[in-house]
Amino acid sequence: MTETSPLIVFTPSGKRGRFPLGTPVLQAARALGVDIDSVCGGRAICGRCQVNVGEGEFAKHGITSRGSHVSEFSKVEERYDKLRGLAAGRRLSCQTRIMGDLVIDVPPESQVHKQVVRKEADTRAIELDPCTRLCFIEVEEPDMHKPSSDLERVYKALEDQWQITGLSCDLAIIAELQKVLRKGEWKITAAVFSRAPGGGNRLVAIWPGFHDKAYGIAIDVGSTTIAAHLTNLSTGEVAASAGLMNPQIRFGEDLMSRVSDVMMNPGGEKEMTAAIRLALQTLAEEVAGRAGIALNDIMEVVLVGNPVMHHLFLGIDPTELGGAPFALATGLAITIPARELDLRLNPGAWAYVLPCIAGHVGADTAGVVLSEAPHEQDEIMLAVDVGTNAEIVLGSKARLLACSSPTGPAFEGAQISSGQRAAPGAIERIRIDPETLEPRYKVIGCDLWSDDPGFEEAVAQTGVTGICGSGIIEAIAEMYLAGIINQDGVVDGALAARSPRIESYKRTFNYVIRQPREDGNEPLIRVTQNDVRAIQLAKAALYAGIRLLMDKLGIDAVGKIRLAGAFGSHIDVKYAMILGLIPDCDLQKVQSAGNAAGTGARIALLNARARDDIEQVVRRIEKIETAVEPMFQQHFVEAMALPHKTAPFPHLAKAVTLPATKEITATGEDGGERRRRRRG
Amino acid sequence: MTETSPLIVFTPSGKRGRFPLGTPVLQAARALGVDIDSVCGGRAICGRCQVNVGEGEFAKHGITSRGSHVSEFSKVEERYDKLRGLAAGRRLSCQTRIMGDLVIDVPPESQVHKQVVRKEADTRAIELDPCTRLCFIEVEEPDMHKPSSDLERVYKALEDQWQITGLSCDLAIIAELQKVLRKGEWKITAAVFSRAPGGGNRLVAIWPGFHDKAYGIAIDVGSTTIAAHLTNLSTGEVAASAGLMNPQIRFGEDLMSRVSDVMMNPGGEKEMTAAIRLALQTLAEEVAGRAGIALNDIMEVVLVGNPVMHHLFLGIDPTELGGAPFALATGLAITIPARELDLRLNPGAWAYVLPCIAGHVGADTAGVVLSEAPHEQDEIMLAVDVGTNAEIVLGSKARLLACSSPTGPAFEGAQISSGQRAAPGAIERIRIDPETLEPRYKVIGCDLWSDDPGFEEAVAQTGVTGICGSGIIEAIAEMYLAGIINQDGVVDGALAARSPRIESYKRTFNYVIRQPREDGNEPLIRVTQNDVRAIQLAKAALYAGIRLLMDKLGIDAVGKIRLAGAFGSHIDVKYAMILGLIPDCDLQKVQSAGNAAGTGARIALLNARARDDIEQVVRRIEKIETAVEPMFQQHFVEAMALPHKTAPFPHLAKAVTLPATKEITATGEDGGERRRRRRG
Repeated sequence: MTETSPLIVFTPSGKRGRFPLGTPVLQAARALGVDIDSVCGGRAICGRCQVNVGEGEFAKHGITSRGSHVSEFSKVEERYDKLRGLAAGRRLSCQTRIMGDLVIDVPPESQVHKQVVRKEADTRAIELDPCTRLCFIEVEEPDMHKPSSDLERVYKALEDQWQITGLSCDLAIIAELQKVLRKGEWKITAAVFSRAPGGGNRLVAIWPGFHDKAYGIAIDVGSTTIAAHLTNLSTGEVAASAGLMNPQIRFGEDLMSRVSDVMMNPGGEKEMTAAIRLALQTLAEEVAGRAGIALNDIMEVVLVGNPVMHHLFLGIDPTELGGAPFALATGLAITIPARELDLRLNPGAWAYVLPCIAGHVGADTAGVVLSEAPHEQDEIMLAVDVGTNAEIVLGSKARLLACSSPTGPAFEGAQISSGQRAAPGAIERIRIDPETLEPRYKVIGCDLWSDDPGFEEAVAQTGVTGICGSGIIEAIAEMYLAGIINQDGVVDGALAARSPRIESYKRTFNYVIRQPREDGNEPLIRVTQNDVRAIQLAKAALYAGIRLLMDKLGIDAVGKIRLAGAFGSHIDVKYAMILGLIPDCDLQKVQSAGNAAGTGARIALLNARARDDIEQVVRRIEKIETAVEPMFQQHFVEAMALPHKTAPFPHLAKAVTLPATKEITATGEDGGERRRRRRG
Repeated sequence: MTETSPLIVFTPSGKRGRFPLGTPVLQAARALGVDIDSVCGGRAICGRCQVNVGEGEFAKHGITSRGSHVSEFSKVEERYDKLRGLAAGRRLSCQTRIMGDLVIDVPPESQVHKQVVRKEADTRAIELDPCTRLCFIEVEEPDMHKPSSDLERVYKALEDQWQITGLSCDLAIIAELQKVLRKGEWKITAAVFSRAPGGGNRLVAIWPGFHDKAYGIAIDVGSTTIAAHLTNLSTGEVAASAGLMNPQIRFGEDLMSRVSDVMMNPGGEKEMTAAIRLALQTLAEEVAGRAGIALNDIMEVVLVGNPVMHHLFLGIDPTELGGAPFALATGLAITIPARELDLRLNPGAWAYVLPCIAGHVGADTAGVVLSEAPHEQDEIMLAVDVGTNAEIVLGSKARLLACSSPTGPAFEGAQISSGQRAAPGAIERIRIDPETLEPRYKVIGCDLWSDDPGFEEAVAQTGVTGICGSGIIEAIAEMYLAGIINQDGVVDGALAARSPRIESYKRTFNYVIRQPREDGNEPLIRVTQNDVRAIQLAKAALYAGIRLLMDKLGIDAVGKIRLAGAFGSHIDVKYAMILGLIPDCDLQKVQSAGNAAGTGARIALLNARARDDIEQVVRRIEKIETAVEPMFQQHFVEAMALPHKTAPFPHLAKAVTLPATKEITATGEDGGERRRRRRG
C-alpha cells in the first residue's frame, strides 16, 4: 500500500496496516492476523465479527486526522440489527469499510480465541479454541461444462473461504450432502473437526443455510457420581450441568468389588458398560433439555474417569486392573466417534477421553493435571484427589511424578461407625472445648451450630444421622487438639472421670458426640477407637504416598497444595494438616481445586492444544507404583502418628498450638500394648 | 567393516557389503536394503525369508575363495522343514549366518515387493505392496517398576521390531487386546493398515501367536453382474473368483430405470443399497468358502462400479445422476471400514472405493485406467468400456481426456429383434457368402460351425435362440461386406430376387439367418432394418464420443486401442472397425483388455501406491460432457455411415476390402426417403 492509503490500527492487539479506501474492516483484520471471529465468513449473518469504531486516543496510535472514517451504517447492518440486535456503537466488521485512518477495537467476545473465565479462584482462564468449528460456506453449483462432484465443490469452498484443507468425511455426510446443498440453495453450514486420528480435518456435520449452535459436554465419570457440563463451544459458557449417581453402584459399593464382580462373571463387564453408557446418554439428554437445545447440536464429548470407570465406559474388561501388575489395556488418549460409545448426539459428534497415567492413576487425574497445571509451576505443587484411592501428583515444570495410594473408603465416611455420605443430617463441622470436652457441631442442610438457639427445631426434620467425611476429619483433629487422643491416636480413658462423653467399650474408649433424642429415630453418634485407627490408616497411606514422591524428587517441603474432588472441597485444610493427611505447607497455599478432573475435561473440550499438552505431559510423568516401593511401608508406619512421627510441621505450628506429646495410661489392651512396645 | 570381514553379494539386486562373521543373512539383507519378506521378524516361523546359497559364478561377483561359507543347517531350520517343508537347497535367511564370502540369491517369492504376473498378455505385472501388513511381534510384559499400558507396549513392539510409527486403533482392538496378549503369551500377530483417512498407521486386527493369512477381495459391481476375486495379500494370487447377477436387476433392467425407480419412490434407494450389499456379502462368503478360508482372514475389499452402482452400494441416493447436470455426490476415492458397507469380514477390514471420473464415468473406468495405464503411454491410447453407456478414455502421458457416450443397450443384444444375452444357444460368430448370401455361424456352447456335419445334433439341446452382442456386430458387418446393406445401412431389397433370405417386412427388408426347425421350439432369427438402425445409432454415439475427444486432443489417429469389459472380450476387433465403432488403427494394436475394471480393483488391492496414482490421475483427467458439446451431434450424424461418412480407414482398408459406395433403389419408404434426401 502507498503511504497515502488509510492506516488502520486494531486494539487491543496493536496490529496495524494500510489498506485501500473501501476495504472491509474484517478483511483488513484477516490480512493483519487480527483475531476476529466469524461463522458466516463475512456475510452479515452470524454477528460474531462485531467491533467498536475507536473514538479519541487516535493520537496515541499515530493518527492525526479526525472524523468519521468508516462507511455509513449499511442496509445490511440495519437488517441484522432489526433481526438479531446490534448494541449501540457496534458495527459488523464484515460490512464496515475503511474510509480513512481508523482505530478499531475488537471486544473480547468477538475474538475467536477468547478467554473463558473460570469461576474458581486462582486458576487460569481457558483459551477458547475448540476442535469443532462451524463454517458457513457458499458452494459452487454443478456445471456440465466443468464436471465435478458436490463433495469436491464443498471441500473447495472450505478451502477457499476458510483455508481448511486435508478434508475427509463420513459416508453419512456424503449420503445427505446433495439434499442439504439443494435445500440450502448451495449455502450450507459445515462443522469441521480438526483432531480425528491420523490428522487432517474431518467434515462431521452439515446443515442447510446458516447454523450457529455447537455444544460439547464435559463428563467426569466418578465411582459414585457422574457429572456433566454442557458447554457452548463458541462462547465457552456452561449452558447446563447435571449429576447422576453412577448406576454401577448396584454392581458393588466400591470399585474393587465391581472389578471382582466382573472377574466372577465373565462378560459381566458388558452389562456394566451398557449401564454406564445409558447413564451418559441420560445425562446428555438432561443437560440438553435444561439448556433447551437439540441433542443434534452436541458435537463433542470429553470424558474423564478413574481407570476402572475408564475401562468400563470404553467397553474394556477391567479384570487386569484388579490384580498385580495392574496393567491398563490402554493409557493413551482416545479420540473416537461418540456413537461408538452408544451416545446419540449429533451423528458426527466425536468423543475424546483423556489419557490415563497408570493402572491406579486415571484419566480423572490427567484432568486434575490439566486443570491445576503442576507442569507449568515454578515451585513444587502437590495435587491430591482423594476418593477410595488417593491419586497424588507432585512436581513442577522441571519434573512431575504420580502415584496412587490405597487410602480405602474411610475418608468418604465408610468403615466409620457413625460415618455416612455427605447428605442433610450429616455432621460436617465440629469443635470440642478442651476444658469441658463438650462438642458443638453443624450438620449439612442447617446453618446453625448445635449450641445456637433453635438448632434442635431446625434439624427436627432431617435428624442428626451421622458424620460425613469432612466431619470425621474435624472430629478426630479436634479430639487430638482437646487431648482426648494423643499423637498415637489412643483415646485417653482417664478422661472418662472428667466427662461422660468418654465411654468404655470392650477394651477401648469412645468419644460420644450426640445421644439420640428421645422423640427421634436417631442413632448414637460417636467416634470409636476403631474409627480413629481407620482414619489413621487412611491418612498414613496418603501421607506415605506423598512422602514417597517427595523422596523421589529429593525435597522436604512443597510450595503449594491443591485438594481436588468433593472431599477436597469440603474439608478444612487446617484440620487435614493437623491430622497429617498432607505435608506441612503455608496454609494460604493449600487450596481446594473443586472438581478439578471435570474442569480438566472442560478445558480439553474448549481447547484443542490442551489435548496435545496433556498427552505430552502424561507421557513424561514418572509413574510410581507404591506396591513395589520398599520405602512405602516405612513411610506408612511413620505416618500413623498425628500429624507425623518425625516430620516437622513448622507452618502448621505457627497457625495452631499442637498438643505436647502425651503418655496415656488408662486405656484398653491395645493402647497398653502400644505403650509397652514404645517403652521396650 | 574391515576389508577382511566376509563379503556378501545378493542377487538379483547386486547389492553387496561386508559383515562380521556370524551375522544372520537376513540382518545383512536388511542393512543393505535388500528386499526379503518376513512376517515373523526373523523367528523361523513364517518361512517367507527363504534364500538360495549361491554356487559357482562367484568370480563374476569378485569372490575368489570357495567352499561352504554359511552356517550349517540349524536345528531351528530342521524343525521348520519338518513342520512346514523347505525345498532342497533353500535356507531360512534369518537362521543362516555368514561364515565367509558369499553369494545369496533371493528368489522372487521371497521378495516383499514381488511382481504379480497377470494372465492377460501385454500388461504390466503388479508390484505387490498391499496396504495391510501382518507383523508378528513379541510384546514386553507389564512391569510394576515401569508402569505402562498394554497398548503402549504393543505400539512400542511395532516400532522397535517393524519400524511402524504413528499408530492408532479401534476401540474393538483395545477391548480384546489384553486377552489376546495373554493367550499368545506376549507374542501376537498384528495387522497394520497404512492408508486410513488422515494418514498414519492403523492397528486393525490382532491374533494370539503367529498368524499368516491375510486376504483381500477385488469387486467389480457391474450393472448386470458382480464379480469378486479373493486375493492373497502376501502372494498376490487369486485364491477364488465368483460372479453373481446384480440383484438390482429386479428393480429395472437398465440403469436409468433403476434411477427412475428411486426417483418415483423416495427412500427406495435404501432397499437397493441393502440388496446390493447383501449380494456383496454373499459373494464374499462364496469366495471364502471356495478358497477354504475364514471370513475373518479377509482384511480388505476394493470396489469399482459405474456411478449409479457406486452411489447405490455406498448408500447414496443416485437421483441426481438421473438428470442434468448429472452431479455426483462424490467423485473422490473413499476409504472406510468395510463394516460401514454392512460387510462382515474381519471386523477391522477396510474398504477402498476407486474415484469416479464424472457423472457418467465411474470408478469402473478409473479401474480401466489403472489397469491399462493410458497415463503412462508415450503414444495415444484409446480405452473404451462398452456397456449401456460407453466410457471413453483417450490420451497419453501428456494429457488424458474422458467422456461417456449414450450408446444404449443395442451392443448388449437388447432392442435387437433376435438379440439376447451371451448364453448357450446365442449366435456369436457369423460369415455370409457374398455370392449366395448364405450364412454360416457358430453358437455359444458349441465348437462347430453351422455348416459342419453334426451341427444340428450338437445344438439340439440348447437350440439356436438368438444373436448375442458380438454376433450382431459380425452379422451387420458381414451384411455390409456381402452387399446386403450399403454404407448407409439400408438393406438392399433388390437382392430378394436372388435369395429368399431377403424378406420384405412392412416397408423395409430383413435378412433371415435361420428358420426355426420344424421339431424345435426355436424363434426365427433375422436381422431387421430396425436392428441395423439400432446398431448404427449405438456405434455412431460411440464413435462420436471418441471423435470429440480426438478433436479436443487435436489428433486424427490413435496409436493403440483397448476394448474393456465383456463386450470388448468377445467381439472380433476387425468387425468392430468395419462397422466404425472405433477409429482406424493398426489392427495388431487393438486388443481386448478383459475385465479391466476388475483388474484395476485388484491392482489397487495389491499396491498401496496405485491408490495414490489413480487418485492423482483421475484429478487431472479432463472430463468432457458430451451433452453440452455442440460438435457431438455433428460427429454423431457423420458416424451413422459404415464405417464412417468422411473419416479414412487406411489400416482397415489394408486388411479388408470394403465395398464400394452402393446406391440402393429397391427399398422401403424409409430407405427411399433417405435416398431422396441424399440426392436433394
